[in-house]
Parts: sequence; structure tokens; C-alpha cells
Amino acid sequence: MDHLKPRPANSPPLTPLTFLERAALVYGTSTSIVYNSTTTYTWSDTHCRCLRMASSISSYGLGRGDVISVLAPNVPAIYELHFAIPMSGAILNNINTRLDSRTVSVLLHHSGSKLVFVDYQLTKLLFDAVSLLPPDHARPMIVLIENDENENNNVHGLQSQVITTTYEEMIKKGDPEFKWVRPKSEWDPIALNYTSGTTSTPKGVVHCHRGAFIMSMDALADWSVPKQPVYLWTLPMFHANGWSFTWGMAAVGATNVCLRKFDGPIVYDTIRRHGVTHMCGAPVVLNMLTNQSNPTPLPKPVHLLTAGAPPPATVLLRVESVGFVVSHGYGLTETGGLMVSCAWKNEWNKFPASERAKLKARQGIRTLAASEVNVIDPKTGKVVPKDGKTIGEVVLKGGCLFLGYLKDPENTNNCMGDDGWFKTGDVGVMHEDGYLEIKDRSKDIIISGGENISSVEVESMLYTFPAINEAAVVAKPDEYWGETPCAFVSLKEGIRERPSERDVIEYCRGKLPHYMVPKNVVFKDELPKTSTGKVQKYLLREMAKELGNSRATSRL
Amino acid sequence: MDHLKPRPANSPPLTPLTFLERAALVYGTSTSIVYNSTTTYTWSDTHCRCLRMASSISSYGLGRGDVISVLAPNVPAIYELHFAIPMSGAILNNINTRLDSRTVSVLLHHSGSKLVFVDYQLTKLLFDAVSLLPPDHARPMIVLIENDENENNNVHGLQSQVITTTYEEMIKKGDPEFKWVRPKSEWDPIALNYTSGTTSTPKGVVHCHRGAFIMSMDALADWSVPKQPVYLWTLPMFHANGWSFTWGMAAVGATNVCLRKFDGPIVYDTIRRHGVTHMCGAPVVLNMLTNQSNPTPLPKPVHLLTAGAPPPATVLLRVESVGFVVSHGYGLTETGGLMVSCAWKNEWNKFPASERAKLKARQGIRTLAASEVNVIDPKTGKVVPKDGKTIGEVVLKGGCLFLGYLKDPENTNNCMGDDGWFKTGDVGVMHEDGYLEIKDRSKDIIISGGENISSVEVESMLYTFPAINEAAVVAKPDEYWGETPCAFVSLKEGIRERPSERDVIEYCRGKLPHYMVPKNVVFKDELPKTSTGKVQKYLLREMAKELGNSRATSRL
Repeated sequence: MDHLKPRPANSPPLTPLTFLERAALVYGTSTSIVYNSTTTYTWSDTHCRCLRMASSISSYGLGRGDVISVLAPNVPAIYELHFAIPMSGAILNNINTRLDSRTVSVLLHHSGSKLVFVDYQLTKLLFDAVSLLPPDHARPMIVLIENDENENNNVHGLQSQVITTTYEEMIKKGDPEFKWVRPKSEWDPIALNYTSGTTSTPKGVVHCHRGAFIMSMDALADWSVPKQPVYLWTLPMFHANGWSFTWGMAAVGATNVCLRKFDGPIVYDTIRRHGVTHMCGAPVVLNMLTNQSNPTPLPKPVHLLTAGAPPPATVLLRVESVGFVVSHGYGLTETGGLMVSCAWKNEWNKFPASERAKLKARQGIRTLAASEVNVIDPKTGKVVPKDGKTIGEVVLKGGCLFLGYLKDPENTNNCMGDDGWFKTGDVGVMHEDGYLEIKDRSKDIIISGGENISSVEVESMLYTFPAINEAAVVAKPDEYWGETPCAFVSLKEGIRERPSERDVIEYCRGKLPHYMVPKNVVFKDELPKTSTGKVQKYLLREMAKELGNSRATSRL
Repeated sequence: MDHLKPRPANSPPLTPLTFLERAALVYGTSTSIVYNSTTTYTWSDTHCRCLRMASSISSYGLGRGDVISVLAPNVPAIYELHFAIPMSGAILNNINTRLDSRTVSVLLHHSGSKLVFVDYQLTKLLFDAVSLLPPDHARPMIVLIENDENENNNVHGLQSQVITTTYEEMIKKGDPEFKWVRPKSEWDPIALNYTSGTTSTPKGVVHCHRGAFIMSMDALADWSVPKQPVYLWTLPMFHANGWSFTWGMAAVGATNVCLRKFDGPIVYDTIRRHGVTHMCGAPVVLNMLTNQSNPTPLPKPVHLLTAGAPPPATVLLRVESVGFVVSHGYGLTETGGLMVSCAWKNEWNKFPASERAKLKARQGIRTLAASEVNVIDPKTGKVVPKDGKTIGEVVLKGGCLFLGYLKDPENTNNCMGDDGWFKTGDVGVMHEDGYLEIKDRSKDIIISGGENISSVEVESMLYTFPAINEAAVVAKPDEYWGETPCAFVSLKEGIRERPSERDVIEYCRGKLPHYMVPKNVVFKDELPKTSTGKVQKYLLREMAKELGNSRATSRL
């Protein structure tokens, strides 16, 4: 049976890039992108513009294996570059726009980026980063993404000397008949994403065409995205390439509603104006949407997919009452999107709202294209019982998983070794019904007197305290207990009586086992967050450490 | 970058079999299969029954690489076997139930089938086929799929001697905790489907796990199948494994409504009783649905996917007026399902009905996971212009394409060679808007009631009729069957008694499956030929068309 094998006809590399030319055929006259009042493209336009851009990139001698970076908010250019850069054969590297110049510099150096596309509002950040590059590092070419509103392009004074060209100039000069560069193998890299960028050693997650294809198809199937949805870009595209929905939206011929920046009123206004049907975001987005006093109910349901942290029940209830239909899932930069989702069962609709919220706060089960999801005992490597109690490390297996960390075989081998699992570093339990619940990042687990405390569990309880807006719990070093839980909270606006530390602690005592009750409660105006809206617990841990040891022990 | 590569965690073989265990988790208490009034299973039941069956198959020493055949109509067992057989590691081989015993025998021999599951109504066909196996061929084990209605299992008298066991007995004895056999590679075969099975050299199309996974996901996306549809099995599962919807329906947790046999009233009754939302079928099914006088409009729209031949405009209009939402696509046994579909554009809705029907009768554009679809000039190998006129051969490229023909490297190499295309043998044009239209099936093929009939095969048999000198068989358009075989024959000189049309038809009935028997036989003094002596079939097709429709329909 030697002739029964992969051949050129039956094994063309899987890649999400083919979605674009198909979109131009099927949805050619439909809107692909809307942005402000000035910009509207059709799928035919987008296809043509991406071919032109890929051709221009190619004309600079860039292609297979070269890394090209993008530093931009959710404007049309960054959407187009998700196709145009890999269509030139190069590797797309989105950089988090909220990083500081030192970190951006480290990433440019580490990735060996040869060309950087930069939004006109971020030129200073980029120029500072470039100036920090080591002397032996060849200066990358810089392409300016100009102000889309044709206002003053208020770029840094150095512009003329360091900028190679502008985005629209490249589009103009490009060849719309360009034969785009197909991957030779589906395992060829398509994108490089640095994990949150908060650690000192950057980890460059490399995704391949096959993985991006699988994730794109899978994400659409899992969320039941229909054809031609209106998708609002509240999720930064630089976050795991918009959980691969950048590519996916071409597959379904969506209208991509781009937004430079957003807050609650802008989001509500945009939803109404464009008839938005779908959007994604970290739970912080859910918070933002309900922090307004009395938001007007939506004219029709909007599907809202959230991940990154379990949405607290109270937030979930508030946001659903406005008309959002919330789905919850779990993924990492390494998975390129959601690999676990809380698949909803019709029979759960009969439960009271609070029970439903509790069920929905679980991360869920593997998506269709994911192969296996499990929780293992890190010591024995064995799968833990499905009892909703036994804590272990969450491990994954699936075709959407990344290839490895750029220039970092050691970390790659450590997390994707011979046992066949990708080890997430997250800690969770498997419920009896096969649904996964993340209890914490393994580094966020608090170990007090030998007991494991899930910071997420304590936080969920704190969210039920009426005056609390946001809560984060971290470990505080303690001479006696090893560690104790320390809570950082922000309060809702317009609270009449501010609760005291003691009020909060007393409240917790009534609801949690004694060892889980925070020994300290610190009030903050706002909790420090990463660009993707995750609370920066390492900063809170620093603060907790500085609180000292005295009070915690005195209270025992 | 040597460490950036496929590893066990990121490259588990793609397979549709994983859909089943997921369905048991998410849709465990929902209905998986309904059949008659007696049988209802949940996805939890189906998962458990398939594990038991796979375990039982395994206990017979069968597994990787072994072919297991199924000869059954659309009853629950054949649905389950789409999972259970490959979950034992073996290869699923569905056999067309309308074949004659000689052909079934050829297929059993060619496939080297070691076990055959046979429906109680088809035992005579199978026993006859087995008796025709060459003497050196080891007799396959036979498992009886009993009468589901608990009526008299009216099986052939030889039953007790030749039947190994029954289907339910195997389920009963199987281990529900069986660790199912995952493919070692995603290129491992999952299914073997014989094309029409009517040619003297059977072509066994081998599909792999990867291809079946891609087709299943793609088919759901292309047809926008929502979660938990109610799917009516009007399409025989033995046709390319139900266009891969057998596996796909587990992905979305559908209710599979099984039907042993059907006609218009049964289909309408079943749609109403079970709230059917989706169904597939050849255009002959559309015909059947509107042949009733004044069918009552459907209570809610039913999505109806058709392929195999373009639906005639009048039929399309009639069926849509009843409440069916028709989608049209194109595929072959070699593609495992639809690889081209007539993606509908909203802007077309404004056209008059006849124009819409004309647009919908085109086969369309490649589906999402298909890589390329084109029409090439067979002489130059170059792509023909997109002008809707220039005829060429339809060629395909994509991950759902088959591995090759079993034990037939030559035909495999001929149709999937180094030029990277799979050559379909179908003839078509590419329209300006990138939509494909099949102009003619490869000239030998007649498609009658969804079955492919090789004219060469029918002709060979006609040549065995003593008085016939020359024979050529072409398709005659038929409102009900789509096409029927029409024979043109010339008689030998000096025949004493000229045979009648009825004589020839009766002769064929004794030698061919019923659907292959010519419905018309036209006597000619001489068949029209080219200068090189080839019969000009296009002229015969014209003549056949002029014969009209009356006789074929009167004979039903």
C-alpha cells in the first residue's frame, strides 16, 4: 500500500491565508473593515490591498523566515498585516502596544525583526526602543501607519530620518497580481507572539500555518459563528493574533469593526451603529461594560466571548442582563486561542441565575479540534480523579499548540517533552462531568500552613461583597505560615460607606475556611493590569512583601 | 530553530473519532439517534455502545489495517459502525446495498474483508456474494444486524451455519471501558469506499483520518450547521460515508433521525414528528419531495443540501416553495464529501426566482478547507480563462482528498500525479465570478437516483446479448431520477428474429443491478461515429433527450 500516501494534491499545507482569496470571491462586495467614519473596505479591497502589501514587502527582499513586527492598536492596517506579512512568506510579530521601550527593544532584538510597522501614535515608543538596541544590531526598517483620519500626523521629530516609507505608499506601489508565497510545509512559522512581556526573559511563542488554520476553524465552530457576522475588535489583535479570529473572520466574511481605543460608552455606541453581533475580551471588558450606571439594554443580543480569567458571577449576571450572551473559554498564547470552552448545556437553563453563573465560570471542556485536556499530578504524572477537588497541573494536546519558544529549546523541551503533554503551568481540577476548572496559575497558588489556597476562589468570594469592584489575592510571605493570602481590592464608584479592612475580613470569615481568609486587605483606586487586562500579580506580590510580617502573625 | 517542530503534544493525529467522546461529555443526555418508535439513544449511550463494539471487534483479533464491511441501510447500527470500526483500528468499508451479489462478491474479495456486518433484510444478497468468492478466499465472519422492530427476523435459512454472531450480542459482550485504538499517523486509513462498484475493475477509494477530520469540520462550516441540529438520514450513509456527516453530526451533538427506507410521505411525516432541521440528498430526493400533489408547507424551514447533479430550476423552485432551503455543492467519492459549494450571496436575493435557480445550479466555489479548485485544458495543463465558456477538466487540491485507490497504484498515479492536481474526469467551465459549473460529467458516467452508472459496464453486458452488434449507452434526462441509462444498439446482420426493446431490457434485468438496466433501448442501423471510428455519444445524448420523459417515469 506504498502508493496510499500524502501527495501534492491531497496534502497542500493547511493555512488560514487561503481564507482571504475565498472571501474576495464569495463576499467581494461585502464590507470587510469599517473604521471611524472615514474607512470602509470590501473583501475584494482587502484581498487586493493585502496582495499589494505582500508584494511591497517582498520587493524589500524580505520573505521566508524573516520576522516583521507590528506595533499598532486595532486599526485596519494591523488586520491587513495578519494576511499581508505571511503572504510575503515572512513571520508576523505583533508587539503589545502597552509595553515600555526597554521591553520593546528586547523583543525587537530577540526576534531579529527586520521591518517594523508602527502606528503614528506609537512612534516615540518605537524610536526609543530602537535607540536602545545593542550597537551591533542592524537597524530595522520602519514603516509608518499614518493617521487614518487625515488629521495632523503628529509623529516624532526624527521621522524623516528614520522612517523608510509609509503604509499607504507601500500599498500603492505593490502589485495586486502578486503571486503570494505559500508555505512549503504546514509546519512553517506564520506568527511569533511574545507572552505577556512581563517577565524578564521574553518567551517568543512560534505558531505554524497548520496550527493557525486549525485554531481558526475550531474557534468559529466552537463559538457557532455564523456567516457574515459583525465583529467588534475589543480584543487587541496583538493578543495571540486576536485569538486567531483575525484569520477566522475572513473565513466567514465578517464585517470587522476596528477601534483605536475604547471604553464603555464607545463600545455601546459602536454596537448600535454597526449592528455588532460578536466581540471578545478579557473579563476586564465585561467589567467596563457594566460599570456604567444603568446601561441601556442592547437592541439585539451580542455574543461576547471571554477568557483569561473566570468571569465573576456577579459581573456575568450584570453583563447578561444588558443583553450580552457570554461564552467562556480558556487558552494561552501557546494555544493561539481557546482550546477549552464552557460548552453550554440546554438542561442548565433551568437552574437559577447564580447557579448558571457558577457553571459558566468553569473553563469547560476541550474544543472540537483539541485532542486532549487533562489535569495531572505533577509528581506522578498521573491523571487526577474527576472529583472537582484534587488539584493538579492542566495539560493539553492538540494541533493548535505552538511549535516552541524562539531560540529557547530548553523552555520548549521543559513544557512539551516526551510525555506528550504541553504543561500549562496552570493549576486546576477536573469535575465529575468532565469540565475543567482552573484554580490558579501555579505561581499564583498560595501555600499557607501546608494548605493550597486558590487565589481565584478567594477572589470569587470577595466579588460577592457589595462594595467591591475588583479583587486580587496574592501570597504574602509569613514567617510562621510560610505564606498567607493578601487581598488587594478596588471599590465601586459612589459607595456611601467605605468598608474597613476588618469589615472585609469579617465578611470572609463567614464564608470561607479560616485558613483561606485574607489576613490583609489593601484598598487601591485601581489594580495594576497588563495590556491584556490581566491583573499584574507579580506587582501585587512585591507590595504584599513590603507590608511586612507583623500584622499577619499578630492576628493568629 | 531545530526545536521548532512537530512534537507529540502539538501533532496528535487529526481524526473525527475524537468527536464522539466529546459529544458524550457535552451532549451526554441529549438524543443521538432516533429510529422508528422503538429506538432512542443519547450521546452517552452511543459513546458507550461504540466502545463496546470496538472492544468486541478487537476481541476477534481484528484491528489496524483490517477491512471490515457493512451492508446496511440507514439504521442505527451503520451510524455506530462509522465510529466503532475505526475505533478498533480497522478500516470501515460501506457497501452499496443496491449492488448485485456478483459485484458485492468482487468488492469483498478485492478489499480482503475479514468481517461483514449485514442487515437482516440483506442476508440473501450477502450469502450469495460469499458463495461467489473464489475458493481460496477465506470466508469472512458475518455479523447479523437484527430486525430493530423485534419482529420476525426473516433471515435466510442458512443463517445458523454461517452467522458468527449478532450485532447486539457483540455490543453486550464488549467492554465499555475499552481504550480505543488511536491512529498512529493521521494518514492512517479510516475508510474504504468503492466508486459505484459497477466497473469490472473496482476502484477502492481509501480515506485517511486527517482527510475525514478536515472534511467533517469543513462540511459543517460550509453549511453553517448549528449545534444540536435534527438531521434526517435521507442520504445513504454508504455514499461516501454520508458525505462525512456521519462523523460531523457527532461534532455538533445532532439528533440523527435514521430511516430504513423512505418516500415523500414518510419524509414529510418524519420532518414534522422530529422537528428535522437538516437533510441531504441527490436531486432525486428533491424530486421525490415535490412529486406529491400539493405538499403541505413545512412548519419551519428545513435545510436541504444536494449534490451529484445540478438541481433543475423547476424542481428547485417547487421544493423551495414548500419551505426547504436548498444548498448545492459538488464532490466525489474521492473527496469524501463536498469540496465545492454554491456559496450564496445576499445580493442574489434580489433576482427573480428563475435567475436565482440558475445561479444555484452552478456547483460553486471551493469550501474553506479545500485548497484549490480549477478547470484546466487537458492538453496544455493550463488553467482555462474565467469566461463561463471555455471547457476543461475540473481539478482539485485539498486536505480532504483520498489517499489513493486500494491495490491500484496505476489509477492513483494517473489521477493524482506530479502536477499536484487530482483530476476529476469531470468537465466544466469557470465563470467570471470564480464559480465553477460542471458542464458534463466525464462522458461515460450516468447518474441515476444518485447512483453512478458506468456506461461502459452496461455496454459490456449488452454486447453479450447474441443479436446485438454494437451498443452505446448514454444518459437520458429524467425528471425523477435525474438521468436514466438509454441504450442505442445495432443488430447483427442476418438475425432471424429481431429482439424487441422489452427482450433486451429483460435480458439486462437478469444480469445487472436494477438501477443500471437501460430504461430505453433504441435500435439503429448504425451508430454515428467519428472518422476514427469512435461512437459520437454527444449525438446520442441529443437523440436520447428528444425521446422525452414519458416512458421512464411510467415505469416506476
